[in-house]
Amino acid sequence: MPTSPRKDFSSDNITGVAPKILAAIQAASAGTVHSYGADPYTDALRHHANELFERAVTIVPVATGTAANAIALSVLARPYQAIYCPASAHVNTDECGAPEFFSNGAKLLGLPSEDGKLVPGQLTEAVAFARSMGVHHVEPAAVTLSQATEWGTIYRLEELAALCTEAHSLGLRVHMDGARFANAVARLGCTPAEATWKVGIDALSFGATKNGALAAEAIVVFDPSLLTELEYRRKRSGHLWSKHRFLSAQLSAYIADGLWLANGRQSNAMADRLAAGLAAIAGARCLQSVDANEIFIQLPESVIAALRAAGFEFYDWPAPPAGASGPVVRLVTSFDMVEADIDGFLAVARQSAG
Amino acid sequence: MPTSPRKDFSSDNITGVAPKILAAIQAASAGTVHSYGADPYTDALRHHANELFERAVTIVPVATGTAANAIALSVLARPYQAIYCPASAHVNTDECGAPEFFSNGAKLLGLPSEDGKLVPGQLTEAVAFARSMGVHHVEPAAVTLSQATEWGTIYRLEELAALCTEAHSLGLRVHMDGARFANAVARLGCTPAEATWKVGIDALSFGATKNGALAAEAIVVFDPSLLTELEYRRKRSGHLWSKHRFLSAQLSAYIADGLWLANGRQSNAMADRLAAGLAAIAGARCLQSVDANEIFIQLPESVIAALRAAGFEFYDWPAPPAGASGPVVRLVTSFDMVEADIDGFLAVARQSAG
Amino acid sequence: MPTSPRKDFSSDNITGVAPKILAAIQAASAGTVHSYGADPYTDALRHHANELFERAVTIVPVATGTAANAIALSVLARPYQAIYCPASAHVNTDECGAPEFFSNGAKLLGLPSEDGKLVPGQLTEAVAFARSMGVHHVEPAAVTLSQATEWGTIYRLEELAALCTEAHSLGLRVHMDGARFANAVARLGCTPAEATWKVGIDALSFGATKNGALAAEAIVVFDPSLLTELEYRRKRSGHLWSKHRFLSAQLSAYIADGLWLANGRQSNAMADRLAAGLAAIAGARCLQSVDANEIFIQLPESVIAALRAAGFEFYDWPAPPAGASGPVVRLVTSFDMVEADIDGFLAVARQSAG
Amino acid sequence: MPTSPRKDFSSDNITGVAPKILAAIQAASAGTVHSYGADPYTDALRHHANELFERAVTIVPVATGTAANAIALSVLARPYQAIYCPASAHVNTDECGAPEFFSNGAKLLGLPSEDGKLVPGQLTEAVAFARSMGVHHVEPAAVTLSQATEWGTIYRLEELAALCTEAHSLGLRVHMDGARFANAVARLGCTPAEATWKVGIDALSFGATKNGALAAEAIVVFDPSLLTELEYRRKRSGHLWSKHRFLSAQLSAYIADGLWLANGRQSNAMADRLAAGLAAIAGARCLQSVDANEIFIQLPESVIAALRAAGFEFYDWPAPPAGASGPVVRLVTSFDMVEADIDGFLAVARQSAG
Repeated sequence: MPTSPRKDFSSDNITGVAPKILAAIQAASAGTVHSYGADPYTDALRHHANELFERAVTIVPVATGTAANAIALSVLARPYQAIYCPASAHVNTDECGAPEFFSNGAKLLGLPSEDGKLVPGQLTEAVAFARSMGVHHVEPAAVTLSQATEWGTIYRLEELAALCTEAHSLGLRVHMDGARFANAVARLGCTPAEATWKVGIDALSFGATKNGALAAEAIVVFDPSLLTELEYRRKRSGHLWSKHRFLSAQLSAYIADGLWLANGRQSNAMADRLAAGLAAIAGARCLQSVDANEIFIQLPESVIAALRAAGFEFYDWPAPPAGASGPVVRLVTSFDMVEADIDGFLAVARQSAG
Repeated sequence: MPTSPRKDFSSDNITGVAPKILAAIQAASAGTVHSYGADPYTDALRHHANELFERAVTIVPVATGTAANAIALSVLARPYQAIYCPASAHVNTDECGAPEFFSNGAKLLGLPSEDGKLVPGQLTEAVAFARSMGVHHVEPAAVTLSQATEWGTIYRLEELAALCTEAHSLGLRVHMDGARFANAVARLGCTPAEATWKVGIDALSFGATKNGALAAEAIVVFDPSLLTELEYRRKRSGHLWSKHRFLSAQLSAYIADGLWLANGRQSNAMADRLAAGLAAIAGARCLQSVDANEIFIQLPESVIAALRAAGFEFYDWPAPPAGASGPVVRLVTSFDMVEADIDGFLAVARQSAG
Repeated sequence: MPTSPRKDFSSDNITGVAPKILAAIQAASAGTVHSYGADPYTDALRHHANELFERAVTIVPVATGTAANAIALSVLARPYQAIYCPASAHVNTDECGAPEFFSNGAKLLGLPSEDGKLVPGQLTEAVAFARSMGVHHVEPAAVTLSQATEWGTIYRLEELAALCTEAHSLGLRVHMDGARFANAVARLGCTPAEATWKVGIDALSFGATKNGALAAEAIVVFDPSLLTELEYRRKRSGHLWSKHRFLSAQLSAYIADGLWLANGRQSNAMADRLAAGLAAIAGARCLQSVDANEIFIQLPESVIAALRAAGFEFYDWPAPPAGASGPVVRLVTSFDMVEADIDGFLAVARQSAG
Repeated sequence: MPTSPRKDFSSDNITGVAPKILAAIQAASAGTVHSYGADPYTDALRHHANELFERAVTIVPVATGTAANAIALSVLARPYQAIYCPASAHVNTDECGAPEFFSNGAKLLGLPSEDGKLVPGQLTEAVAFARSMGVHHVEPAAVTLSQATEWGTIYRLEELAALCTEAHSLGLRVHMDGARFANAVARLGCTPAEATWKVGIDALSFGATKNGALAAEAIVVFDPSLLTELEYRRKRSGHLWSKHRFLSAQLSAYIADGLWLANGRQSNAMADRLAAGLAAIAGARCLQSVDANEIFIQLPESVIAALRAAGFEFYDWPAPPAGASGPVVRLVTSFDMVEADIDGFLAVARQSAG
């Protein structure tokens, strides 16, 4: 568990806890408070969330992103309904069927996407087809998109607004998987309100774990009538902590002084620095716009081998997008990386590229 | 959130984190480790668990007792099967249908119990009836019991052995809800092995949260073939932490130096001291044997009123057992209580009793 | 498969198809019609149902009573909710967890009953308790009762009205399992409207199979907004017949000329005749009021033995109600029994009783 | 509901009941027999099934193809597992999520197909990917294919054998959706045994409804250890008929004298005649090999319009396969069509084509 220089670029979930969040956990441990969320830490979190989103919101904390996504989706779609998503969405490919489990079998219908993003008009076509089939086809109910996407790209606000308008006009509600929401907002330079309810998002998984928390994500919805169902479903799925203060304290520390945004900016900046440095390598080719903290990049085999020989870690990407002629790797930066970490990586890469 | 003297006797989940566990979380936060359990903290936990149970065990950590119970039960019973339990079991009354959710609709069949404990012969009768009904009745598959029980009582080892033998002879597997396992083992003066697999327990929810952890429980099974299903179900239900080290570190600290047992002993001792002190109050009558850290006690209304006026907190018990003629309250002690806390409670009680 | 005299009194589902219904099936087989219910037979059924219930109703045919009950309940309760029922209800004891399956794990909460009937005030108490528990207890949503009950008794209209008023005031909707609805209406001498929506029933399983159909029951609801969900859930559970005309034709024949009521009257009359005859046997004691076509009766062992020796079939009843000192058997009459069938049974009984 | 000449070519589920099956229903209605399958008609069906498949088989009748498919799949895959299928499979597109419902959320993973058929090697690749993802991806468990396919094509025996070998080598079990099994076997000229277990099929939905039954399909499995689970799941899903004899009688009449095969041959022959006749129309182009009783054909708009003006019914096909430059319609023949029906259609088509 060496701490410096960082050699692991495989993910942002390999990180520890941001010091301010760790301190908040420690502080919250003093004394007794009522269990299951009837505590001052949770009251404070509600206050922070309302401020952050510039309106009254409903916030329901859980420990994992899979839980946040799946619980949120389960209140947006009944078991006999359809949830549209990019075929490449995390909820569709990496959560072992959690949305199907929590929704009791609602069907995720994967749509082709461009750079991980849904394309306007797709929903209209898919819903029209579904409705032409009547009861033989699951009933359209919701759509989920990721911001940032699984490909490290970011929807612009006008793209979000257009998709939400399309979805709402079809009677669908829109969920945003914000496991890397901070990276997206940091890049967009907008407010959380602008990035969500002001463009029409109905439910958000507000991620914190990848960006500095120990284990904390929040389901945030803008329709208060969903609160009761969310709370029953959270309890029923074992995601209501008895010592709830420790979820709330993490999230309050994350929100309170803008830590979430600062951390998102830092990992974005590290990704920019890394991408810029790699651009100078002959044969290197970024496959996507580096919008957040992930880089999908084609690199010469010799460079990849040299990096690994030097102890750097990252994933080979199993399904390179169209146009990649060589091996593709994924590099992920995180909130706790510093310039020296990036420069260490780049030094080896440059050297091996000759 | 005053810390001393303690006035909240409402539950053991109102407590903070035991210092050693908090320190372990802090230590584990340094540096990067692989996510999802492929980390040295989780390796260490496996080692500690094997030592604790004196054999190779399968241990799967989660954050809540509800998750531990429900995931464990879901690998013991198919959706069309029956899980027998005392009608008063926590899984049946306090978990919002979590076992039904995780098992996809298996049926909990509540049996009458004595002091929260299953009675020998009940299973045989219930299973015989079920089998006489064929496919019209859910198929018997498992039984779950709590140690300590919801009534603060404890099964003796020979009681457990008899129930497990009965269950196994009927083809049922046995789960133990050990949310307060430490209290039970501390009182029984036996080893964890003797309290579980040596008497025939197939799966254990090894509780830590009520006894000092932040949020950590472990599913422990003694049949390694269940591991794969447990792990898929944990992921699918959103209970696999990406920063898994923080579950493992809590549990290792809890197990490593006998902290779990010391904490269990302390809360038991505080319950004993409290029960002994209350026995001197005229009109006080303990309804159960105080085996663990819970006291169900009939108290004069004036005493209850005085305690509440002095700021003490505890629950009125909604369904007093047969024989209670007056109001019954539940008093719960915890690992972090000290004699002064108990004595403060007793002083007010005695004074109000005149 | 001898037809006369009938010796099998074990159930009313051992019967064949009423001739008029068989003829309707045969007639409906001619030619082609659109599948999945877009056919004239289904249009006709809707017409008949509206007439029968004296208002526009929503009718959704299926093949089995288990399906009718479970689909109906699944639209009245979400997975995290509670459905109250008598502990002895068919849905709770004889359907292999079908309500749990269709509702994705909603919890049936069995209440003690008198003669198979819910007792006023129980719901109020149970719901108050549930609500005091918050998210730890499944959320109260619905209640289901059987008319006639599993004990062959019948709720009077004023009993139904009182229970529905109580349920509605608590925010619960009321389902009626009418597997033997015809027997109940025949006995009450009221109209189907009076027996259902006029007293507050929200959803009815309108049984036909036991009373003359081949395989046909109808879910009838009085809130048309439930139609869409019912139809999706029917399809999804494999209960939408492609040759839907054959469900509709059965039910239309059953309703059209009052066949349902005539058949219900006949089986009731046969039960009355049987009960009256048995009353003369020394040691015979009916345990319930014979309201429909079931008789739960204590008989001398010698009489039981003689009947079985003569080839008569019926069930020993496994759980005799309080007060039965000897063996109890269940005798069921059916729409196709005639007086000679009853008299044959009585002759042997009388003879053996000496 | 005119019977002749037939003008509805929209599906094979618009048909009535084959006379021999109707007669069998009528005959089975006489007298009483035990309910739920403990009757001589069901015994006879087991005998017929064993003869048909040339070995002891496990047969479980239900009323619909959706139920047969979904129940069969639910015993082959746990909720956290994957079922591979052609993306175009009926179970994936036309059953409103029934497999997800019955399996409690197992995930159907659609694979691209050629002419509706799975392609060798796909499974190997998909399973390798799944396993590389560990618990983040649903666990591979089963594959389902349709024979005949949704595109009216048929797997040759050697194709089936290769797919089954591939699946089994990966640890997957293979289900065959045989809604049009008779058409396939009739065309292949093989025995049912050769078409199923001899090439490695583990579970078959043996269709009868489209081919002459009122409402009857059979789940047939070749591993008797699955019987218990199948029967519990059938009951639990409301698909166990109380008057089970009427399912068994239909299926026995369907199997007994080779009716199933004769009917399959007849609808195939009618499709051949229709395809041959249409081949002479300028601009007509069959998109698939006409292997069974479905024709997907590109026709001039004028011909389509003329046919509809003359009262003929058929579906426009929503998603024409690659290569279709004009409107595509689906024409389906059935067991009860005769040459005059086909010739009537062809006469109008030829005339309109000029």
